[in-house]
Amino acid sequence: MRIKRTIEDLFYMPRSIISEPTRKTMRYIKKHIPKISIIKFKSGKKVFDWVVPNEWNINDAYIMEPNGKKILDFRKNLLSIVYHSSPVKKWISRAELLKKIHYDDKLPNATPYVTSYYKKDWGFCMPKNKVKKLKKHKYFVSIDTTFKKSFLEIGEYFKKGKQKKEIFFSTYICHPSMANDNLSSLAVQIHLINYLEKKYPKSNFSYRFVFLPETIGSISYLSKKITILKKNMIMGFALSCLGDDNQYSIISSRHGKQLSDLALNSALKGKKKLVKFSYLDRGSDERQYCYPGVDLPVTGFCRSRFHSFKEYHTDKDDLKYVSEKGLKNSFEILKNIIDAIENKNFFPKNKFLCEPNLGKRGLMSTIGKKFYKKGKMIKNFLVYADGKRNLFEISNTINLNLNDTINITNKLNENKLI
Amino acid sequence: MRIKRTIEDLFYMPRSIISEPTRKTMRYIKKHIPKISIIKFKSGKKVFDWVVPNEWNINDAYIMEPNGKKILDFRKNLLSIVYHSSPVKKWISRAELLKKIHYDDKLPNATPYVTSYYKKDWGFCMPKNKVKKLKKHKYFVSIDTTFKKSFLEIGEYFKKGKQKKEIFFSTYICHPSMANDNLSSLAVQIHLINYLEKKYPKSNFSYRFVFLPETIGSISYLSKKITILKKNMIMGFALSCLGDDNQYSIISSRHGKQLSDLALNSALKGKKKLVKFSYLDRGSDERQYCYPGVDLPVTGFCRSRFHSFKEYHTDKDDLKYVSEKGLKNSFEILKNIIDAIENKNFFPKNKFLCEPNLGKRGLMSTIGKKFYKKGKMIKNFLVYADGKRNLFEISNTINLNLNDTINITNKLNENKLI
Amino acid sequence: MRIKRTIEDLFYMPRSIISEPTRKTMRYIKKHIPKISIIKFKSGKKVFDWVVPNEWNINDAYIMEPNGKKILDFRKNLLSIVYHSSPVKKWISRAELLKKIHYDDKLPNATPYVTSYYKKDWGFCMPKNKVKKLKKHKYFVSIDTTFKKSFLEIGEYFKKGKQKKEIFFSTYICHPSMANDNLSSLAVQIHLINYLEKKYPKSNFSYRFVFLPETIGSISYLSKKITILKKNMIMGFALSCLGDDNQYSIISSRHGKQLSDLALNSALKGKKKLVKFSYLDRGSDERQYCYPGVDLPVTGFCRSRFHSFKEYHTDKDDLKYVSEKGLKNSFEILKNIIDAIENKNFFPKNKFLCEPNLGKRGLMSTIGKKFYKKGKMIKNFLVYADGKRNLFEISNTINLNLNDTINITNKLNENKLI
Repeated sequence: MRIKRTIEDLFYMPRSIISEPTRKTMRYIKKHIPKISIIKFKSGKKVFDWVVPNEWNINDAYIMEPNGKKILDFRKNLLSIVYHSSPVKKWISRAELLKKIHYDDKLPNATPYVTSYYKKDWGFCMPKNKVKKLKKHKYFVSIDTTFKKSFLEIGEYFKKGKQKKEIFFSTYICHPSMANDNLSSLAVQIHLINYLEKKYPKSNFSYRFVFLPETIGSISYLSKKITILKKNMIMGFALSCLGDDNQYSIISSRHGKQLSDLALNSALKGKKKLVKFSYLDRGSDERQYCYPGVDLPVTGFCRSRFHSFKEYHTDKDDLKYVSEKGLKNSFEILKNIIDAIENKNFFPKNKFLCEPNLGKRGLMSTIGKKFYKKGKMIKNFLVYADGKRNLFEISNTINLNLNDTINITNKLNENKLI
Repeated sequence: MRIKRTIEDLFYMPRSIISEPTRKTMRYIKKHIPKISIIKFKSGKKVFDWVVPNEWNINDAYIMEPNGKKILDFRKNLLSIVYHSSPVKKWISRAELLKKIHYDDKLPNATPYVTSYYKKDWGFCMPKNKVKKLKKHKYFVSIDTTFKKSFLEIGEYFKKGKQKKEIFFSTYICHPSMANDNLSSLAVQIHLINYLEKKYPKSNFSYRFVFLPETIGSISYLSKKITILKKNMIMGFALSCLGDDNQYSIISSRHGKQLSDLALNSALKGKKKLVKFSYLDRGSDERQYCYPGVDLPVTGFCRSRFHSFKEYHTDKDDLKYVSEKGLKNSFEILKNIIDAIENKNFFPKNKFLCEPNLGKRGLMSTIGKKFYKKGKMIKNFLVYADGKRNLFEISNTINLNLNDTINITNKLNENKLI
Repeated sequence: MRIKRTIEDLFYMPRSIISEPTRKTMRYIKKHIPKISIIKFKSGKKVFDWVVPNEWNINDAYIMEPNGKKILDFRKNLLSIVYHSSPVKKWISRAELLKKIHYDDKLPNATPYVTSYYKKDWGFCMPKNKVKKLKKHKYFVSIDTTFKKSFLEIGEYFKKGKQKKEIFFSTYICHPSMANDNLSSLAVQIHLINYLEKKYPKSNFSYRFVFLPETIGSISYLSKKITILKKNMIMGFALSCLGDDNQYSIISSRHGKQLSDLALNSALKGKKKLVKFSYLDRGSDERQYCYPGVDLPVTGFCRSRFHSFKEYHTDKDDLKYVSEKGLKNSFEILKNIIDAIENKNFFPKNKFLCEPNLGKRGLMSTIGKKFYKKGKMIKNFLVYADGKRNLFEISNTINLNLNDTINITNKLNENKLI
């Protein structure tokens, strides 16, 4: 199945932290990953410095001119209200209306995505070009939303491996109708779980994947699971915006040089448009996973990073912005990381003291100038295959993409050299 | 009081290592810092590889043409003789005179500052342009100086804090009539002591400030105090040339990465004209404080560093060269360092696991695009406020000036987040 | 004696791993270094993953046209056959011949050096320009070579010092008629041994020099000597291509920052054309000496590195390509390293706390501007002469060539300052 299909299926839904569309999204995920379990947190529950909010649903919202013409209609653009708006229904002046309108300065034809999760408020979002044309008369504003006590839901998929040590992946599901941010990562993560189940039914490591609302979701999750995560996690990835094919981005873990950092660096080696961000440029759930005291080895992975592409958090982040090729390439990177760590030669070790004779095994030329590219990379691999360095470290040291490094590993294993 | 006032008061004096003007300077310092105590070293005393010199005083010096015209007059320019010149009074030829004259090749109108402290000699200093015009006849040279056994004096101010751990500042007072080198640092240091006494009457750390002749002074001082300094000093600063406003200079400690290096780097973060010198480019008393076996954590701080501004060691380093603004800015840097280390949150520690909710405390926006500059810096601060990093380290890590870092510390403390 | 004389004496000989000319070369070495001992490995002996090959000798080889004209004659160009070619004598078509001919794409007038040591094969080498002109008719190919069981020979010179700790040098002697690769290093190594014997008859450290066939030679040698080498070697150098005067090259040891890396870096400090290669760019016997599990502290030293000069492995690497000046300069570098480590102040230690008075000892000016170049370098030396840093480290830290560093050491020693 195409990865993008998942995005198409879930695109037109006004998700928020807790809402009917978010629950529907979770049911969709569970349909594709039946083994997922749902963890619930009651509205009003205190989690560290935060409180789980109420469920919020929206039926309709619009702005109407005196002549009855709707100049903004929520049903036509799901981003056109401030998410978590309180209900409102009244005539207001143009000046009052302008105070309640949000727009994007840089993309004058785009409707931005705005939330007010933790402060009672209401508002509309529209393109700057439309705001400029608002005439000086009264406007009828209507926002039909409801709040109620309910449950924040987190989907968790856990796969037990031979080892208790586990690999962690997290992505968020609370954003409404935007493709790259973040249905793309949701889609990639579903496909990654399917790949893992099929390819490694008896995996060496354990794996844990979570689908949760950003920030409050990861905070709630940590409040419950921090002990087991700290005990077992050897590397983790916070996935966000994985659907375009414009660049690759790494957001370093807070400590840096974690296994997860090494893994992503080796998997992305050689990619032309690779941007490495420090932890100071974090922005998604790696904020919580790496927090002092939490200290999990989690690295952020994006294509064009949040805040770094102009369509970010607007209705231009739509189905056209993401591509099957972009999604596939993101998937491949994470797949390579799993393939490496599940490789029985994850810590390859030379069988011989001194270089082996590669020529007699057909692994390098036996005649002519001594070094050939193929032979050189195999030799470079071998001089660092000391049993102490793992595949991520070797890939980074010899400056060879993780995928090619795995191929050499398998070839040397066939030739009984490691 | 203006800082520059101190420089004006002390400018027109022919100081040397031991001399009446130097003693007068010390009395001036004691008048402004009554708690200072004077440590004395007798002429002839051996200190490590050196011997404390005799007191040297100068009454007058001049060069006279056969017609009785004085072409050089010490009373008109205090730098016009070689400091520590032996007395002389005789007619010599132009050729002999030229051997005894020093000038500055790069500043042809400047009189350089020259000393011969440890070898009996005499000489004059004058502008190169004047040297070129010396006519071919006899000259009468007269230097009226005296030597006698006396005492080298060091002024030491010590402030006991709650902790024995101490912060150290050192500057030198042996240079004659030059403003930046080094009356500027003498002036800044006096003001810093006044600030400390007023602002932190009950300081947490202990503080030690010394005023001494360069090189022989710090060597003598170390010969007496090395044990206590090595035991208690946690950071120290060798101050020199702090009066112009052209650039900021750090001279790294010998080991580097000492608390003093971190402190100065964070306090100077963001300054446009910041030059970082390695210890190989040292030149003042950090030479002794960091010497192998001495090994004190002392960093050098200058504005335009010695040897790096063309007026250095000439009579162009005058009252016009330094400015109140330059002195004030130098003072602020050192003041910020004291404010940081005296802050009760010098090692700030988060109260929460996971990010706190900054929005509800008004520390970041509750609506609109997620990150705002203010909120971002506070968040960056918090993710490194792990109780193990001090304010200098956090400032360097999040790339935020020490002063701004202190402001965030205080704001978070008010909000009970650290 | 000129160093280049050795190259001239040995140039016109078709050496291979085991052959009569190689044995003759070894006898030449022994004539100049009588104390050398020969270690032998029987053909067919297994060494790690390899097998010692048979002796191979060549009497003659040529390619003849139907008209009897020899278009290739081994006696005129010793590189014109593939080394270790099996014997052959037959008429073949032009198409068949072309498959057996090797040429250099980049140097169309050069004959390349090609071997097929571990696979039975045969072939010729000729300039590309000549290959293009081969006419379409039959050719008579004749290669008159013989194989027989024999012994691989390694020449080892060992000099016992006061300490068991030893310095190691290795170069290879298996290449036929090329000057830079590698008669140059053979010649330099002979002169280095002569220097050592003469200058340090009672050396502090022990020294070991080996002359061996590349790859199989060092592997065989390690199979026998690895234990003693790992126990005693404190630094080693793999010498290759030391005869041109175009640049200097360091090939880092696998671990990097070994004593040998420090030594070469300090000895080459200030050389204008200095290229530092990582271990990934290794190519000679450092491949074996640094192999995981072998782990000897060996650094590669070349002038223009193998694979980096266009004449490499062709008949253009001839007597004109190398120069006495180039050889001499290479020799000096290695001589300086020996002079440093044999210096009784290899770990210099200051006699004084605080700077000594250099002026009274004539080591810096006593009058005028404080720092002079000479004095500054001596002072820089002294602040790192803490008894823990060796001369290589000090040279690298103060950014001063090893030779100048040794001169300062000796001067300070004369003045009883260290």
